[in-house]
Amino acid sequence: MDDSMKVAVLHGIHDIRIEERPVPRPAPDEVLIRVSSVGTCGSDVHYYEHGRIGDFVVEQPLVLGHEPSGVVVARGRDAHRHEIGARVALEPGVPCSVCAECKAGRYNLCPRMRFFGTPPVDGAFCEYVVLREDFAHPVPDTLSDDAAALLEPLSVGVWASRKSRIAPGSRVLITGAGPIGLVATQTARAFGASEVVVTDVNPRRLRVAEELGATGTIDVSRDSLADAGFTPDVLLECSGVPAAAAQAIRTVGRAGRVVLVGMGGDELPLPLSHVQNSEIEVTGTFRYANTWPTAIALAAGEVDLDALVTHRFGLDEVEQALTVAAKDDSVIKAVVRA
Amino acid sequence: MDDSMKVAVLHGIHDIRIEERPVPRPAPDEVLIRVSSVGTCGSDVHYYEHGRIGDFVVEQPLVLGHEPSGVVVARGRDAHRHEIGARVALEPGVPCSVCAECKAGRYNLCPRMRFFGTPPVDGAFCEYVVLREDFAHPVPDTLSDDAAALLEPLSVGVWASRKSRIAPGSRVLITGAGPIGLVATQTARAFGASEVVVTDVNPRRLRVAEELGATGTIDVSRDSLADAGFTPDVLLECSGVPAAAAQAIRTVGRAGRVVLVGMGGDELPLPLSHVQNSEIEVTGTFRYANTWPTAIALAAGEVDLDALVTHRFGLDEVEQALTVAAKDDSVIKAVVRA
Amino acid sequence: MDDSMKVAVLHGIHDIRIEERPVPRPAPDEVLIRVSSVGTCGSDVHYYEHGRIGDFVVEQPLVLGHEPSGVVVARGRDAHRHEIGARVALEPGVPCSVCAECKAGRYNLCPRMRFFGTPPVDGAFCEYVVLREDFAHPVPDTLSDDAAALLEPLSVGVWASRKSRIAPGSRVLITGAGPIGLVATQTARAFGASEVVVTDVNPRRLRVAEELGATGTIDVSRDSLADAGFTPDVLLECSGVPAAAAQAIRTVGRAGRVVLVGMGGDELPLPLSHVQNSEIEVTGTFRYANTWPTAIALAAGEVDLDALVTHRFGLDEVEQALTVAAKDDSVIKAVVRA
Amino acid sequence: MDDSMKVAVLHGIHDIRIEERPVPRPAPDEVLIRVSSVGTCGSDVHYYEHGRIGDFVVEQPLVLGHEPSGVVVARGRDAHRHEIGARVALEPGVPCSVCAECKAGRYNLCPRMRFFGTPPVDGAFCEYVVLREDFAHPVPDTLSDDAAALLEPLSVGVWASRKSRIAPGSRVLITGAGPIGLVATQTARAFGASEVVVTDVNPRRLRVAEELGATGTIDVSRDSLADAGFTPDVLLECSGVPAAAAQAIRTVGRAGRVVLVGMGGDELPLPLSHVQNSEIEVTGTFRYANTWPTAIALAAGEVDLDALVTHRFGLDEVEQALTVAAKDDSVIKAVVRA
Repeated sequence: MDDSMKVAVLHGIHDIRIEERPVPRPAPDEVLIRVSSVGTCGSDVHYYEHGRIGDFVVEQPLVLGHEPSGVVVARGRDAHRHEIGARVALEPGVPCSVCAECKAGRYNLCPRMRFFGTPPVDGAFCEYVVLREDFAHPVPDTLSDDAAALLEPLSVGVWASRKSRIAPGSRVLITGAGPIGLVATQTARAFGASEVVVTDVNPRRLRVAEELGATGTIDVSRDSLADAGFTPDVLLECSGVPAAAAQAIRTVGRAGRVVLVGMGGDELPLPLSHVQNSEIEVTGTFRYANTWPTAIALAAGEVDLDALVTHRFGLDEVEQALTVAAKDDSVIKAVVRA
Repeated sequence: MDDSMKVAVLHGIHDIRIEERPVPRPAPDEVLIRVSSVGTCGSDVHYYEHGRIGDFVVEQPLVLGHEPSGVVVARGRDAHRHEIGARVALEPGVPCSVCAECKAGRYNLCPRMRFFGTPPVDGAFCEYVVLREDFAHPVPDTLSDDAAALLEPLSVGVWASRKSRIAPGSRVLITGAGPIGLVATQTARAFGASEVVVTDVNPRRLRVAEELGATGTIDVSRDSLADAGFTPDVLLECSGVPAAAAQAIRTVGRAGRVVLVGMGGDELPLPLSHVQNSEIEVTGTFRYANTWPTAIALAAGEVDLDALVTHRFGLDEVEQALTVAAKDDSVIKAVVRA
Repeated sequence: MDDSMKVAVLHGIHDIRIEERPVPRPAPDEVLIRVSSVGTCGSDVHYYEHGRIGDFVVEQPLVLGHEPSGVVVARGRDAHRHEIGARVALEPGVPCSVCAECKAGRYNLCPRMRFFGTPPVDGAFCEYVVLREDFAHPVPDTLSDDAAALLEPLSVGVWASRKSRIAPGSRVLITGAGPIGLVATQTARAFGASEVVVTDVNPRRLRVAEELGATGTIDVSRDSLADAGFTPDVLLECSGVPAAAAQAIRTVGRAGRVVLVGMGGDELPLPLSHVQNSEIEVTGTFRYANTWPTAIALAAGEVDLDALVTHRFGLDEVEQALTVAAKDDSVIKAVVRA
Repeated sequence: MDDSMKVAVLHGIHDIRIEERPVPRPAPDEVLIRVSSVGTCGSDVHYYEHGRIGDFVVEQPLVLGHEPSGVVVARGRDAHRHEIGARVALEPGVPCSVCAECKAGRYNLCPRMRFFGTPPVDGAFCEYVVLREDFAHPVPDTLSDDAAALLEPLSVGVWASRKSRIAPGSRVLITGAGPIGLVATQTARAFGASEVVVTDVNPRRLRVAEELGATGTIDVSRDSLADAGFTPDVLLECSGVPAAAAQAIRTVGRAGRVVLVGMGGDELPLPLSHVQNSEIEVTGTFRYANTWPTAIALAAGEVDLDALVTHRFGLDEVEQALTVAAKDDSVIKAVVRA
């Protein structure tokens, strides 16, 4: 193992520099992981382009990247879960484990969460990272490094599908066929949904949605959702466009559930009387909790994560990866191979 | 029993006339009930003043009143649940019982619901009504006729408390100390809430809230809710003011639940990132289902419904009752004694 | 349409006679259905062989058969849901729809349920039956008559899978690979279970279980369940053997769920400290509620019901069908074609 | 603060010795607590009399006592939650916080739980203990030291009431009026139960149950539970007598819930067809999770814990306390004042 490693560091808007840093040392309950593959996420792109997301501001050099897979190369004194050489997917947020939210099983809501690539916590666009051993999840050999990395976005889909109580027979509307909409399409089917209708303005993405299990698609640049006559039980809002979200909520049927996954805008004009008259449940998701084992089981089975990877870059090319992800709408998922 | 009866009929805005009509005859599964007491509700006032509520338009003469109690005076051929003379509270909406919503236990969402005093179904501002026997609920002698009538608004509170999963230890914020806010205050306590903070702009109503169990009150005409520093687990929105609702939602803590009970306005500016970051669940209530037995148990115990009755009128005075309820803010609940 | 029809009537133990009866007339809310296919069930066999099941005693001539499909041939005055000629699956129990259980959405627990082929209610081993129109469920043309009939046992599997909250990632143990165990194997997979281990003493049935999606099987005539080292989240007990059930419960992991589906014996020796120390939830199922739409969606997709049909008989051969089902362990499901 | 302290150590059956030990030092995330009051529990008595409980065997000297309250007297380096001098109730089991059960919010099922007074972990019959700071819960001044100690058994009642989903309108049967039955009586009322019927063979305890909120009692040494005609929604089994439990389960109504709280015997003869036909849910409790805040709110309000304390002893008298608790049936709760 090396003493120093290559790191892609965000110094400001449109300013990522490849630097050398010491390889970190694992704390007693941590493992040291050689990074294999890291997915790029819309939030990485957003930090790169705007230097902030809402209240999270990049005020000092920051390493982005929170969708990593890798290999365990060293263990802290008390870390016994993994063998050296084990291939793992990294759950990239470590909570305090002792607050009321953590103890209630909602560790994603921990106010002291330290999350990869979120100021001031460094992420995984580098060669090595340390992680509390229980957040490194062993993956089967049948899973590629890229797929292991993309268990992170898959977890978002699993969490949204759980929250919305999708089950056999469910009719699901998914607004937005970006990476999250596309994993949600797959998790909705895996949870048993019998109908999954996906909307987007990009025909290419809608075709991918169909390939991944959507039973119907609507190109909302041409056709009206309201006219489609589809009355879902569940809406997974993955577009992050408040007006589209509001319109989609109006189509949800009695006792339906809405999960607001997509971020964007601070206010959503909630159709009050529809929510009341049909007793619709609306909630949002913030990351996920306890999803990796399920995501691994799905990715080892019916869910195809490799199909989402359209572009690959080296660690020296993080800036290029984020630029392409921002500008080229043929990108579904770009991964960085460390 | 008489052949004809007195009925208060709404013919148009601000036009209620006392008329004679034949006493109705119970169908085989119905009972005929001599009306004792009928609460007036904000929706009665709204129909009287505006001739409509949203899509529900008064297009032909309509009898208002959907909070009745009474006495069983005759039974249909197959109606065996009640003895003649039984005092009953009337659950004022009869669903089809055979649709998917009814079969799922959500009969309040039945699209074929026939609800008292909602066009085109007549209500209870009259001397006699018929009702499917299973929607007439026997009440104990310890309950007054007025209290038996007010089991209807109490049911709204029970339903909201169930939906929001209030339990011992819950911290509850109730926005609005009208009749619904005041029953919700009581049901929240009955469900075990350890803190119940009520807001309103009317100090008199806030005093009543305190008498009925609120552990704190905020006069939002003077003090800011945001400054109060109260972080509820549960918000029962009973004001029907969208801006107030949005502001209140911003105070709700992690994994909190919001139930939108108050009607008013068609859009609520939902604070999206707060709902997402704290994974708050937002829903609305539409009437209630399976609440009367619980409401009766509460009213026989710790919940005080008689305390809500501030004004009483005769059946000839329905118009006056609705006018006073609309204009006089010392009214909490006006009842009509048939 | 004929005036009279052929009916297979149970007169006593081992005594079924083919008789002529008038074709029934639908009540206003009923449809008349020409029976296509009827599955034979263990309970039919039990009545045929013992004249009773527990408290249900055959005291007068009874028509068995409660797994029917058919075609709507006439409608009562108020029955508008189905076109004449519609192919339907019959949900064979009609509840009162007005009791507390029905109103709570648990109509399977209705004390006034009238269930096909259960004394004193006649079943479907005949040419025509009447049924409340909302219990006749339209089936797509892609479903065979036999598959439409077997939606009834499939509903048992759907109900057990719902009760046990099977979801992606679940590890499920199914004890008993009879017809119910085999549909449960399929529903467990359809609900997303990643592991489904099935036990039986019959190697042929275990092979069928594997063909239908089991990820593992244990022949408990040779191998010990305890030695298998499988720790399920969910146990669907389909064997009806109390000792086997108790043994299987001991393998269930922390916070696991046990659903007792199989009937047999009146007492089950519950391993108390295991249930307590691991906080295992144990419940039983009694038929099902609101399952047909889901069952139809599954049968139109990944669940294979035709694969269960091993024997077919004519209506004249009901006695033979029940005898073979009782004695020949190569039978999985015998159907009677009316 | 002293360097050494007095400790009551169990060396074997009927052999407790008062010894001097060094005062423990808090780890970085721990606080040192001067013990105020410790309740004696049936399990303390059982270890004292039998040297074991099931698989838990006293193989080396053990300090009993797991119902303590106290005062924070020192803090570890990273412990900042409590001020020195804070009065606290001790939640006496510290889980690993990193296993799957802990992360799912079920830390009571943590396989690495270290629980006070359970071999090989020492308990609180001593002058000082250390505890992870987040398991020390601040108590209001209105709560006595004894009441703060008895939040532990109260938590058992809270947990059972949560598991059984008691709510306003619930009809609850509690079998056994020992300390747990008596706290369960109070929590059932606090969760809103409208009827709480308690059974025991000891008339004095039944009188206490009535004083604490039971709406009815049955002396099962004289009267048959089956004859009482009470059909509960919820059974909280607190007697630990399997035959009584089985009999009580037979009285539970449709869709009822049974929580097996009392320990004793390894097998319970579960009435299978009743559990199935009425779809009763049966589960057990193992300690509790996330109950102290609720228990504190209840004890500060309607729940009376001091009423349970019938006997008080000094730390030198632990042996006497356990002997009296074992032999004298006038004891409800004996506390040890350290």
